[in-house]
Amino acid sequence: MNERAARKESGMPVQPSGRATDFDANAAIAAVEAEMLAHLQTDAPALAPLYGMMRYHLGWATAAFAPERANGGKRLRPLVCLLCCAAAGGDPAYAIPAAAAIELVHNFTLVHDDIQDNSASRRHRRTVWSIWGAAQGINVGDGMYAIAHQALLGLRGRGAAAEKVLDLMAGFDATVLRICEGQFLDIGFESRWDITADDYLAMIGGKTAAIFAYAARAGALLAGADEARADAFERFGTAIGLGFQVRDDLLGIWGDPAVTGKDAADDIRRRKKSLPIIMLHEHAGEKDRHALESVYASAEVAPGDVATVITMLDAAGIHDACQEQVERYHTRAAALLNESRASGPAGAALGGLIERMAARDA
Amino acid sequence: MNERAARKESGMPVQPSGRATDFDANAAIAAVEAEMLAHLQTDAPALAPLYGMMRYHLGWATAAFAPERANGGKRLRPLVCLLCCAAAGGDPAYAIPAAAAIELVHNFTLVHDDIQDNSASRRHRRTVWSIWGAAQGINVGDGMYAIAHQALLGLRGRGAAAEKVLDLMAGFDATVLRICEGQFLDIGFESRWDITADDYLAMIGGKTAAIFAYAARAGALLAGADEARADAFERFGTAIGLGFQVRDDLLGIWGDPAVTGKDAADDIRRRKKSLPIIMLHEHAGEKDRHALESVYASAEVAPGDVATVITMLDAAGIHDACQEQVERYHTRAAALLNESRASGPAGAALGGLIERMAARDA
Repeated sequence: MNERAARKESGMPVQPSGRATDFDANAAIAAVEAEMLAHLQTDAPALAPLYGMMRYHLGWATAAFAPERANGGKRLRPLVCLLCCAAAGGDPAYAIPAAAAIELVHNFTLVHDDIQDNSASRRHRRTVWSIWGAAQGINVGDGMYAIAHQALLGLRGRGAAAEKVLDLMAGFDATVLRICEGQFLDIGFESRWDITADDYLAMIGGKTAAIFAYAARAGALLAGADEARADAFERFGTAIGLGFQVRDDLLGIWGDPAVTGKDAADDIRRRKKSLPIIMLHEHAGEKDRHALESVYASAEVAPGDVATVITMLDAAGIHDACQEQVERYHTRAAALLNESRASGPAGAALGGLIERMAARDA
Repeated sequence: MNERAARKESGMPVQPSGRATDFDANAAIAAVEAEMLAHLQTDAPALAPLYGMMRYHLGWATAAFAPERANGGKRLRPLVCLLCCAAAGGDPAYAIPAAAAIELVHNFTLVHDDIQDNSASRRHRRTVWSIWGAAQGINVGDGMYAIAHQALLGLRGRGAAAEKVLDLMAGFDATVLRICEGQFLDIGFESRWDITADDYLAMIGGKTAAIFAYAARAGALLAGADEARADAFERFGTAIGLGFQVRDDLLGIWGDPAVTGKDAADDIRRRKKSLPIIMLHEHAGEKDRHALESVYASAEVAPGDVATVITMLDAAGIHDACQEQVERYHTRAAALLNESRASGPAGAALGGLIERMAARDA
């Protein structure tokens, strides 16, 4: 069965031209945000603050629950989902419930991550737990995960066949489980030094890349892509997800505080074992390795210690080695975009997204 | 369309007699546990401890992840699901994935609840977070919630129609959201005294009763019950869930430590605003109300304070008032069992369960 026939059979719309029409990313993200927001409401006054905390985290409410438009993140994952849907020849309007679910589930993991990392600020604002306490923070995340499923089930109202929705639900929770597996490894790394760069890449494969992979795959499946094509899109998502995290690790050490919104060398201050640190530890001589371990063993990292670690990183050429890693992932992503036969304006937009992500400063 | 025809159309088995066969509760729970356990495994050695922590919480592994059979809870919710399926004329074997999902989701909420309540022990064993830290505890709960969905999707392999599985998935996450709403209210109660018994019952309607209601409804739907009959089963579940929690509140103050496994008057020591305390506060004179508030305002509740509160509770006849509440719920449950036309050995077993739950000591 060809894709057009498969799409028709699964109840998905078939565009007359078989190609994506012009892709308006801003309009697409606005539609995803409207879909998310519709799920974060209640008629019960006693429960209003619970949903207010969720809207606060997403940048749509102040801590007093008044409407606002603060920075709620880049919405990269839903954008990838909609672009992959369009680039596979589908109508992204039908993928909006999936895109909304993906952004909600990503944010549920952030709400919990902030508690696990003891982070008091995110996107220049206080974190949920730091305002309302860890108990409510855990609960806000749990509720947002439940709501993400309700958002995904919105596919039922958009013509997707029941079996396809079930496949997408299965992939959705398998993805969250991979994120939890990555998070489990990441927390474990805090007390270990016997971590290789490969261990680290396996960890971010779950913690960061799995949701990008799902976003790309879900978009393709909702466009009626067959298994092989959906797999190519999924591998594309994995590649950009890995590149995204390694670039993030670079910015966590060498990023400009005025642009990232984080303190300078924030990851070193917070003794995070990001890829640059693991590469340094793996390749450094005994003296440097001991110096690094001793900085990370101290209860608080002094400014002089931060400078020492950066000097070691620079001497070992870690910045450039990491950026080369980012570019390898993005080269792979471009090849997979080709293999997935991504086409039309959305295909071109995905190509542009790869380049922007590899060079992003925030 | 009658139920038999509906069951046939939805792909569910129709028993030749149209009635439940003998119900072996022990065998049913063993089958649910086997289904749960099958989901709590991994082939990746690096990830084994994550699944080990989940099995530990459920009583199937020691803290070193060696197999054991410890107390993992009463498995009441999956039992209700399977009994309701059989009592509505279905084959409970087909509801096992739903029953496993229900017990997994219940336990995910317990893992998080222990962190939120700062509880170091449950069922005579240390809690997950108290062994592996709050960060891993949050992650274990998140992963278990993801796995609960995978368990529920196991219905696909047992002949349930895709649309019915989607309905059950929608109800599943709506239930978790109700649990989160209840948890939000419960946490908020900690810092308030303007709570009425009605506020409290609304809170436990979410936190405790919603999952019993879902268990009963899911069992009935999987037996092919129509909406009206499934609603009656659901209201039955709500009634036993409310009764369960109020009985729990009684045991949290007057329970026998040797039987409950908790300290004597544990809820007062832990300054929990359970129903007896709220009823006392609502009906007490100004002097007693102030005495109660002052005990709950102290950082630690002294043994003499516990005795003072129990004396006030006994003088106000709160124990008996609460037990009457339990019995009202269970009388309502019995009427709803009748309304739902629960029949056969499983219907009788549900009647017996009501009586045991109203009088339980642990």
